[in-house]
Order: sequence, then structure tokens, then C-alpha cells
Amino acid sequence: MKFVCSKSNLVSGLQIVSKAVPAKTTMSILQCILIDTTEGVIKFIANDMELGIETIVDGNILDRGYIAIDAKIFFDIIRKLPDNDVTIESQNTEGNIKVTISCEKAKFTILGRSGDDFSYLPAIERIDGIQISQYTLRNIILQTIFSISDNDTNKVMGGELFEVDGNMLKMVSLDGHRISIRRVELASSYGFKKVIVPGKALSEVSKILTDSTESIVSIFFTDKHVLFEFDKTVVVSRLLEGEYFNIDQMLSSDYETKLTINRREFLDCIDRATLLVKEGDKRPVIISIEDGFLEMKINSAVGSMDEKVDIEKQGKDLKIGFNPKFLIDALRAIDDDNVDIYLVNPKAPCFIKDADASYTYLILPVNFTTVD
Amino acid sequence: MKFVCSKSNLVSGLQIVSKAVPAKTTMSILQCILIDTTEGVIKFIANDMELGIETIVDGNILDRGYIAIDAKIFFDIIRKLPDNDVTIESQNTEGNIKVTISCEKAKFTILGRSGDDFSYLPAIERIDGIQISQYTLRNIILQTIFSISDNDTNKVMGGELFEVDGNMLKMVSLDGHRISIRRVELASSYGFKKVIVPGKALSEVSKILTDSTESIVSIFFTDKHVLFEFDKTVVVSRLLEGEYFNIDQMLSSDYETKLTINRREFLDCIDRATLLVKEGDKRPVIISIEDGFLEMKINSAVGSMDEKVDIEKQGKDLKIGFNPKFLIDALRAIDDDNVDIYLVNPKAPCFIKDADASYTYLILPVNFTTVD
Repeated sequence: MKFVCSKSNLVSGLQIVSKAVPAKTTMSILQCILIDTTEGVIKFIANDMELGIETIVDGNILDRGYIAIDAKIFFDIIRKLPDNDVTIESQNTEGNIKVTISCEKAKFTILGRSGDDFSYLPAIERIDGIQISQYTLRNIILQTIFSISDNDTNKVMGGELFEVDGNMLKMVSLDGHRISIRRVELASSYGFKKVIVPGKALSEVSKILTDSTESIVSIFFTDKHVLFEFDKTVVVSRLLEGEYFNIDQMLSSDYETKLTINRREFLDCIDRATLLVKEGDKRPVIISIEDGFLEMKINSAVGSMDEKVDIEKQGKDLKIGFNPKFLIDALRAIDDDNVDIYLVNPKAPCFIKDADASYTYLILPVNFTTVD
Repeated sequence: MKFVCSKSNLVSGLQIVSKAVPAKTTMSILQCILIDTTEGVIKFIANDMELGIETIVDGNILDRGYIAIDAKIFFDIIRKLPDNDVTIESQNTEGNIKVTISCEKAKFTILGRSGDDFSYLPAIERIDGIQISQYTLRNIILQTIFSISDNDTNKVMGGELFEVDGNMLKMVSLDGHRISIRRVELASSYGFKKVIVPGKALSEVSKILTDSTESIVSIFFTDKHVLFEFDKTVVVSRLLEGEYFNIDQMLSSDYETKLTINRREFLDCIDRATLLVKEGDKRPVIISIEDGFLEMKINSAVGSMDEKVDIEKQGKDLKIGFNPKFLIDALRAIDDDNVDIYLVNPKAPCFIKDADASYTYLILPVNFTTVD
């Protein structure tokens, strides 16, 4: 096998597929990427058996073939080469595969492995796919993924519900203390689909996606797999098996208190309050909601803090405690300048949601009378 | 005590004095800074007994006084405040010092300590000081400090020689394998002075100095201390006791081979060679110097690398091995596009120096025949 690519194309391709190379594994072949030029394109593939990524790199093939090569060493070498054309050539002598990487006056030789040891991605039929812009998919992943949980006793919490119904896509994550829901309208209408996609796959996909609103991602499902296809890249992940929680029964539109607050001011205020709380100390922030303002108070061994933030309020006064991290995560995932918060009483969940329910963040309060 | 300062002035002042607050100590007062407004200016002081820093912060004093306050907590609070005026007030009730920090609608209360527990900086007479621009002092520190050593058996290696002779300032550091020397001309002429300044003090001073060529640092010495004074800041450090090495006898101007090489190309080439060497493996890079080029080779369990770099050469061909880190450190500390390297034989030190000896980097070679 022999081909020539620019350094920058190699770096882009390796950045993409590296995301499916496990940091640690007992199977050394999983730490390799496959370079396959047999079909007349330069294809890089990585596959950790849960998640597989394949991407095509522009370049000039001189001699077709396929080999596996240690991803980390290969990427480290490519990264340090001068910014110029790189020639990659493999030679098989008596079962030893030598890979030569040359660029300008620099020449590296490392050992490769037979491509036959490598597992290709599972074949997924591309039918009934849904289409969404890279920008939108990336956003709704980032706006929900923080509340998945690596709860070992309930595996489905480690993934997100991915539900298509007509022209609506809904993504949901929950960890037992909070639920994050995003809904977006799709350009076309599709049948009903409901799968659970592992958090790891969504997280890696979100890192490869660009913020292009023009460029489209096609998503295909089988019983066991999901496939994301965009630009010259394909990402395949196993689905999580099991039944997702029935979240509709946890959502309610009744409330006793509704407040509207400047998101940035509220975030900064919580941020300051958490200053006085040491890492690992689960002290809640106590929020008193009154006419025209909310007052946040925190007391700890380090000191005390007290701050008022202007609000618009409807309904009853209320005093309620929260894990500040949960409020911060939800508020950071929202773009709006002002947010509406719906509350019932100090023991009932609070909802941060917008009028057309494009986002809903449910957060359970903390029983502060026993803590503080 | 009560005063008002802008948040940004407080942050700048705290950034400066924090550098003399030890990360860990058994004496909790050392983790405090002293705020002293008794002389009509707002002065922040930190002092870990080896290194002390004092700086003046612009603001408006309403009530003079002095207190000590935990540096980390205080700085964390200030950093998170809105970008506006901050009022700091201390109240002493029954021996308890309460410090209130308020800004807009946020109010923090933390405990302070009596300023009487705090050690002020040692009084240093400001006579016979030398003057140098912030830019130059910062540069010559950064260009030499990497080769100090925390060798416990020879404490002076943990500092730098600081020698003034007439209008020349010389700074020297060495670690047993290499010597770094920088010489700069001062604007005036001074008497002969020779002290050893701890690396810690130089490192912190270099972080506070700006790259201003206009702003001047005055440096004063006593038998036991050095004092740096610039802008509104004073840094005092103890000196290291003992006799520095006689480096003049280690320097020689004889050579058998002289080569001129593009510094960037040489650096990149060494950088690539070290890729194949695992952390902790002390494998040298082997350099063969011939007419018109040098060839660098490295062989390791990971693979092999071979690269040629153009040079201009005078004198004999030579094959010599080096610890690549030492070459990289020296080459990075030089600004010139091309550097001159002087060599004698594979066992004698190599010198990287410029024509007027504003820099001299001596590096001992590695005996590669036993290693490779």
C-alpha cells in the first residue's frame, strides 16, 4: 500500500477516528486504526466494538492495500511532521509489516499489523433515515447530555432517549434527580421511532459535528445500532437495550409559583454562592422567592453569603433548596436571556421550560430543613 | 477598616501578592495576606518567610486599619463578583474579626484575623540599586531558569548566580549537565556584586514582570536579601548562602567543529526524534555532522527515525549523542534565526553561543556507544 496525503488532511481524519480508539484495552488491535485504500479512496476506520468511526481522507493512492497501525503512535508522528505532503508506504517482508512515513527530509519507520485482524464496522442498511442539521444535532446533544448517569444498576440512564414522532425529535436524559428534555422540529415527517443511544456515542458525535446549519446529518436505525452519516464520516454505535422511563407521567403543568428571571444574573449569583461550599459538601442553596426578588443564602464553615436578584413573580411566596450544580447545568444549557421557572412547594420538582416546550428541565429540590 | 476598590484593581493586586502565598503550610497565618491601610494607601502583603511581596492597590479608604485574611478564600470571592466597585469592611467584636465584602446586591461575610499576627517584609535599605527594564529582566530570567536544579546536596544549584560587574549583568544557572549564561549591558555602571538568588523568587518575579521596555525595575542587595521594586510592587527574597561554582574554568573557546544551523528546523527535527522515545527512557539522539548537513537518527522499540538538516560546517566531521531535552531547552531560549554550535569531540561539552556572548549554553554530550 502506498499513498500521499497533505499533513492537514491526515490530521483532520485522525482527529475524527481517534474518538473510537479506547484509551486502555487488553486487545491491542482495538488501539489500531485500519487504513484501507482498496476501494480507491483513503479510508480510516476505528472500532472499539461499541462505537465505530469511518472517515475518508483526500489524497493520492499509488498502490492499493490495507493495514492496521497503532493509532496513537501514528497520530503523534503525523502531528509533528512539517506542514507538507506525507507519503505513507507499507511493506510486508516475511510477515513483518513495516510502515514508512516520510515528509520532506524526515523519515519514520514503525511496525504495522495485518488489516485482516481488524473488525470492520457492522453493515447497516441505510433506509428510513431522518435528517437534521449538524448544528441542531450538536446543540441538542450538548443541552441534554450532562444529566445522564453512569448508574451501574440501571444501564439505560447511561444513554439518552432518542424519540422521533412525525416531525418532532425528542431527546431525554435523566439521572434520578433531574430530567433534561429537548424537542426540535424536523424538516420532514417520519414514522415513530424510539431508541436509547449510549452517552459515549453522543458525546463523541457531538465533538465531530461542526456548527454548520447547512450541512446535514442522516441518522439510520436498526434494532441494535444507530448510524450517523455526515460530511465524509460515518459513526456507528450499538444501542442500549431495555425500556426507557415513562417520563410523561413525571411531567406536570400545575404550579403555585411562577417566576421570570434574568438567566445570567441568576447563574452568576448561584456561582458566587457555591464559592463557600467545599467540593463534596452537599450543602444546598436556599432560595426565598418573594414579590419582585429572590434572595439566595448560603452558610458554611468558610463564611456566609446573601444576595438578591430581581424577578417577576406570579403566585405564592416560597422557600426552597436546590443542589446548585443542577441549577447551573440547566441554566447553562439554555440560550434565552430570561427563563421561566415553575414551582409547587418545597418538596415538588421545579420546572424550567419555555412556552413551546422546546426545552424542559426538571430538577428535584433538596430538603434543606434537615441539611441546614 | 473600610475601603472601596474596583473589582479589577483588587484582582490585579491579589494576582501579584498571591505568588508569595504558599500552597501548603502548617502555619495558617502564612496563607493569609495582610491588608494595611494605616499609611493612607491600600497595601496588600504576602510573606512566606523566604519570599515576600507587597503591592499597592488604587481605591478609596474610608476608615484606616489593618487585618489579615485567608488569601485563597478572599481571592475566590473577589474573582466571582460583578465587575463593579467592591466595599471591604472589617469589624472587631469581642476578638472576632468579621470581614464583609459587598458588591452590588451580593454580600459575603468571612472571618478575618488580627493583622498583629502577620510578619511584615524585612526592612531593606534602598542604596546602590541597579536598574534594568522589566522586559530585559523577565527575558534573562526565562532564558536561564530552566537549568537550575533542585539538587538537595548542593543548594546553590537551586538558585541563579546574579553578577554585576561595571555595566554588565550576568545570570548563570547550572545543573551538572549543562550551564546557561546570559549577559546584558546595563545603562549605567555599578560596583562589583555577586549573589545567588533562589529560583523560586526569580520564577515568581518573572511572572509579575510585564514585557515593558520602558518600565524600570530597581534591584537592591544586602548580605541576606535581594529586593526588586517596580510599578507599585516590591518583592523581597532571601539570598542563598554559599559559594557559586567557578564557571569561567568550564568555558573554553577552542573547537574542532563549528556549525551554523537554522534554529527552528533543528528544534522541529529534535522534537520529531523524541516522539519515538518513551518518557523516562534516557535514550540520546545521535547526530552525525558532515559537510553541508547533519543527520539525526533514533532507534527505539516503537520504531526508527532518520532526518537530515542543512548546515554550514567548518572543521572536522563528528558523531555525537545528546539528551534531546537539553538541546530543546537551550534552542527555545534563543531568539536568533540561526545559531552557531561549537564542538570538540564526542566527550567534550558543546557550546551554543553568539558572537558577543550575550548567551552561552553549554551542554555535556551523552556517551551513546554504551547506550545504543
